[in-house]
Amino acid sequence: MQFTSEQLLDDGVVERAFTLGEVPGILWTPGSVSEPAPLILIGHPGGLDKMYPRLAGRARQAAAEGYASATIELPWSGDRPKSAEAEQARADLRRAIGAGEPVTDEIVDRLIHPLVEQAVPEWRATLDALLALPEIGGPVGFSGGVISIGVRLAVVEPRISAAVLFAGSYVPRSTFEEARQVTIPLHVLLQWDDEGNDRQMALDLFDAFGSKEKTLHANMGGHTGVPAFAGEEANRFFARHLR
Amino acid sequence: MQFTSEQLLDDGVVERAFTLGEVPGILWTPGSVSEPAPLILIGHPGGLDKMYPRLAGRARQAAAEGYASATIELPWSGDRPKSAEAEQARADLRRAIGAGEPVTDEIVDRLIHPLVEQAVPEWRATLDALLALPEIGGPVGFSGGVISIGVRLAVVEPRISAAVLFAGSYVPRSTFEEARQVTIPLHVLLQWDDEGNDRQMALDLFDAFGSKEKTLHANMGGHTGVPAFAGEEANRFFARHLR
Repeated sequence: MQFTSEQLLDDGVVERAFTLGEVPGILWTPGSVSEPAPLILIGHPGGLDKMYPRLAGRARQAAAEGYASATIELPWSGDRPKSAEAEQARADLRRAIGAGEPVTDEIVDRLIHPLVEQAVPEWRATLDALLALPEIGGPVGFSGGVISIGVRLAVVEPRISAAVLFAGSYVPRSTFEEARQVTIPLHVLLQWDDEGNDRQMALDLFDAFGSKEKTLHANMGGHTGVPAFAGEEANRFFARHLR
Repeated sequence: MQFTSEQLLDDGVVERAFTLGEVPGILWTPGSVSEPAPLILIGHPGGLDKMYPRLAGRARQAAAEGYASATIELPWSGDRPKSAEAEQARADLRRAIGAGEPVTDEIVDRLIHPLVEQAVPEWRATLDALLALPEIGGPVGFSGGVISIGVRLAVVEPRISAAVLFAGSYVPRSTFEEARQVTIPLHVLLQWDDEGNDRQMALDLFDAFGSKEKTLHANMGGHTGVPAFAGEEANRFFARHLR
C-alpha cells in the first residue's frame, strides 16, 4: 500500500489517497485516536471522483464517531483500465433500459459476476494492508455499494463483523444463493419508491439472508434520497456491532 | 375523566388510573415537567391488566424523554362488558385458526369493524380530556395497538401528528382504503418472521399509506420479540415529530 497524498481536513480527519497495486483508494482516519480504530469499508457503485463528496461525507461522520473508513475504486471504473466485456455489458444494460425491455438475467450475470470476482479479492487485499497499519484495529464493517459485492464479502471474509447493505437493482440469482450463507448482523436500506429498483427482489433478498439479526429499513425518497435519519440509524447499527 | 388512583413510581413517574365514562385507562406523566408535555397514546391488543407490564415499560421510557403517555382499555376486553358479537367473532377466528383454515374477510370484518367504530370515539374523547389537563400540551403521537384503530385515528383525528404502527395480522380491506388517506408521518414496525402475521399484507399496507414520510423497520424475532434497539428507533421517530 503506497500513500500518494495526505491532507488534514478541517474537522481534524486525515484523508490519505493510496494505491494498492493498480487499485486507487482513500483512507480516512479520525484526528485524535488513543487506540487502534475500528474500520468501515465504504462501498459505492464505481467512479471514485464522482462519488467523492458522498463518500467523504460518510467517512467524516464515521470519523466523528471514532471509526477509520476506506474505499477503493471498482474494477473498470473511474481512472482504472476499461474491460471490453464490462463495457459491452453496460452498453447492453443501457440499451435494454432505453428500449423499455426487461433486463435479462444474462445481462445481469455478465454485468455483476466478473465485477464480484475481481472486486472481492481487491477489497480483501485492501483489508490486509489496512489492518497492518498501527492506527487501525478492528472490528470491521462493510457499508453500501454493489450489494452482490457486499454479500460475497460477508460470506468469504471472516474479518467483516457486520454490514450495512443498500438494496440494489441488478442482483444475479447467485447472490440469492450466497445470501443464505450470510450469518453476520445485517442492516439493509431500501428506498421504497426507487424507480430504478426492483422492490420485490430486494424484499426477497432480505428474506434470503441467513443472518439471525437482520433489519430492513425502508424509506421514501428515491434512489439518492436516503433521509439523514436513516444514515444515523445505520451508524447506530455499527455502534452496536463494531464496539 | 375521573382519577381513581395515583402512585409515584420509583423513577419519579406519576401513574394515575382513570375512568372516562365506562372506559378505564392509565395516564403516566414525567416527574419533573416545567411545561405541558407532549403526549403519546399507547395502543395495545386489549386486556389492560395482562398488557400492563409492557405498557408501563413503554410509558416509563417515554416519560424519561419528557412525554406523557396514556392508554385505555379496548371495548369488550379486560373488565369491560362483553359483546355477544365480539365473542362470536373471536370464537370463529379461533376455530378457523385451530382447523388450519384461512381466516376469511368476513370474520376479519366482524372482528375489526365494530372494534374500530367503538374504540376510535373513545380514544378521541380520552384525548379531549387529556389535553384539558394543564400538565399535558401536545403534540400528540399514537403508538401501536390494533393497526386498524391507528389508521382510523390517523385519518380522522387532526390532533395526532405522527404514529408508530405495529404490523398486525387481521386487517380488513377497508383499512387499506383508509390507509391511502393517511398523510401524517408514519413509522411502521414489522416482525419479519412473525408466524401469526401475514407479511405480504403488511408490506401492501405500508405501500398503501399516503404519507410522504413513512418508514418501515422490519426485524427478526417473532411477534413479541421486537428488539430493544427497534423501540429506541421508534422513540427517535417521535422525537423528530413531536418536538
